[in-house]
Amino acid sequence: MAKPRVTLKQVAASAGVSYQTVSKVINKQIQVSKETEERIWETVHKLGYRTNYTARSLRSQRSHTLGYSWLPAAPDQANPILDQFLQSMFQAAEQRGYYLLSFPYHTSRTDHLAAYTELIDTGRVDGFVLSSVEYDDPRARLLLEKNFPFVGFGRSNPELNFPWIDIDGGHGIQLAVEHLLEQGHQRIAALAWPTSSRVGNNRMTGYEKALQHAGIIPHPAWIQRGEGCFAFGYQATLKLLDLPREIRPTAVVALNDTMAIGSIWAAKERGLIVGRDLAITGFDDTPMIQYMDPPLTSVRQPTWQVGQQIIALLLDYIEQGQLSQPNEILIEPSLIVRGSSTGQKLKII
Amino acid sequence: MAKPRVTLKQVAASAGVSYQTVSKVINKQIQVSKETEERIWETVHKLGYRTNYTARSLRSQRSHTLGYSWLPAAPDQANPILDQFLQSMFQAAEQRGYYLLSFPYHTSRTDHLAAYTELIDTGRVDGFVLSSVEYDDPRARLLLEKNFPFVGFGRSNPELNFPWIDIDGGHGIQLAVEHLLEQGHQRIAALAWPTSSRVGNNRMTGYEKALQHAGIIPHPAWIQRGEGCFAFGYQATLKLLDLPREIRPTAVVALNDTMAIGSIWAAKERGLIVGRDLAITGFDDTPMIQYMDPPLTSVRQPTWQVGQQIIALLLDYIEQGQLSQPNEILIEPSLIVRGSSTGQKLKII
Repeated sequence: MAKPRVTLKQVAASAGVSYQTVSKVINKQIQVSKETEERIWETVHKLGYRTNYTARSLRSQRSHTLGYSWLPAAPDQANPILDQFLQSMFQAAEQRGYYLLSFPYHTSRTDHLAAYTELIDTGRVDGFVLSSVEYDDPRARLLLEKNFPFVGFGRSNPELNFPWIDIDGGHGIQLAVEHLLEQGHQRIAALAWPTSSRVGNNRMTGYEKALQHAGIIPHPAWIQRGEGCFAFGYQATLKLLDLPREIRPTAVVALNDTMAIGSIWAAKERGLIVGRDLAITGFDDTPMIQYMDPPLTSVRQPTWQVGQQIIALLLDYIEQGQLSQPNEILIEPSLIVRGSSTGQKLKII
Repeated sequence: MAKPRVTLKQVAASAGVSYQTVSKVINKQIQVSKETEERIWETVHKLGYRTNYTARSLRSQRSHTLGYSWLPAAPDQANPILDQFLQSMFQAAEQRGYYLLSFPYHTSRTDHLAAYTELIDTGRVDGFVLSSVEYDDPRARLLLEKNFPFVGFGRSNPELNFPWIDIDGGHGIQLAVEHLLEQGHQRIAALAWPTSSRVGNNRMTGYEKALQHAGIIPHPAWIQRGEGCFAFGYQATLKLLDLPREIRPTAVVALNDTMAIGSIWAAKERGLIVGRDLAITGFDDTPMIQYMDPPLTSVRQPTWQVGQQIIALLLDYIEQGQLSQPNEILIEPSLIVRGSSTGQKLKII
């Protein structure tokens, strides 16, 4: 690295083309024959010419970098979609000449917003992807105020007007409830989050809708709300199983997999056979739940598609300064049926 | 964003300090009183001054960015440490003024190496973190050849001389085997990878060592090698359980959790009680395995510590152009004992 920097002129001389041709090919401003292009790039690599990226971005005022920070999962909990979501975004971004820059998710609100401000103020990113978007999201408010491009993976309040892509969680839960109705269940309980959860409220619309279509009025005791953790799923299910026989649920729809797994353990503790005596479904299709005993039925998000579409939307926004419609996109999840809702054994290939 | 750019002079006038003071505070070249510093930053934010990051990095020839790409897990498989490893690296990097830039893991070797070359040639990163390092790692060869800073999460062949941090997988498996010996097991099998796997060979040294210490010579049939997947763990365990009674294992050490879970299902299929009739241990402490039935005993990597140390090592390398010793660091994992090796029931709080 102590070698003197190779110049564009040297590359041009060695490749036998003009300085202008090399410059334009490197900056993707003209198309030349495939052979010429290959020869130029070979020469670039052979000589170790470094296109001066920072000088270029100084001229274009663009960093070709997108910022993303996300809420970490607890160390013993899975982030069910992280790997695939990131890989999908990396790939979509790379195809358009962009990279993803990640930064820590600060839990203090001030530090958290300061991280966004610093990235904007230093010109390090051209836009952001926000995930875990909630009501009155302070990040969304900040970026709207600064008129800085971003796309949400998730909606906020309707008056916070920004482009977003979201999984139709209501549709996902509706699929789960309809599947349970088809299995003959009539008393279907829900393990839900507190009503302050935007994502939870979206998902619960599907519970209400599916039961309504079936002419079933849910008993208030069927809806249990709490933190979306294993212990809550376990305890809430014990409560459900203690209800009088005539209103005791035979099926449980959980808004996430962790609560569903707590529910499975509660049913087992009561000596019930999960899938036969109590049907249970989750949400997220977390890796490894296919190996649970019994394997967990769950709602799967089309994560790859979300990553691709979020980046496409964000880059249109950045590059065109506006968005081609639509910029509010709901993507339908699917239901993966396994033994926890049917009683069927795990098939091992 | 169409507003004219705020200048440093305007910030200085508004904050009531000299142009030089503002410039030096922003570039962290001098210390001033806390009040002055706060006033300057407040003014920077209030006026929306954007420190010209690209101009600065043009002068310093440094991007303050670290590159990282990793092998994606299959969509239904967990990457057990991804979230925590990334968060730890983001945090350590941020504390020293660096960000992490991620890019896709190309499966074609040519494209894969080209991605590294492009990031170097365009000056977008100052160094790399490599994970899943294997024998004769082509990324390590490329970066050594280019004399470009990187740190491996994992070792390669001894003659590829670069700084690395690795989990002492041999020690982890040794802990698992010693735990099984303490439970009274004498015939302990291993579900391993092919001998071409550097990580697998490191882990297997612990199996050999622990048995040797106990004066046990492993029967060749106890060591089953194959792809580290669920189906292999399942099938290999059926084979182990078909061995004649006098050499049939009563315990299985798997080199990863997925094989261990396949092993659990095989034991259950044979009507065995896992933990009592057959003890099984895994490796990775993958999120959700604490909810398996029975919960899986597993080796846990100190992921947070690895992320912190990798970034510290890499930044020393980048900033000092050399490394303070040691630059080959082995970190000890720990064993998390659960029901799959003891027969104890899951405790639910």
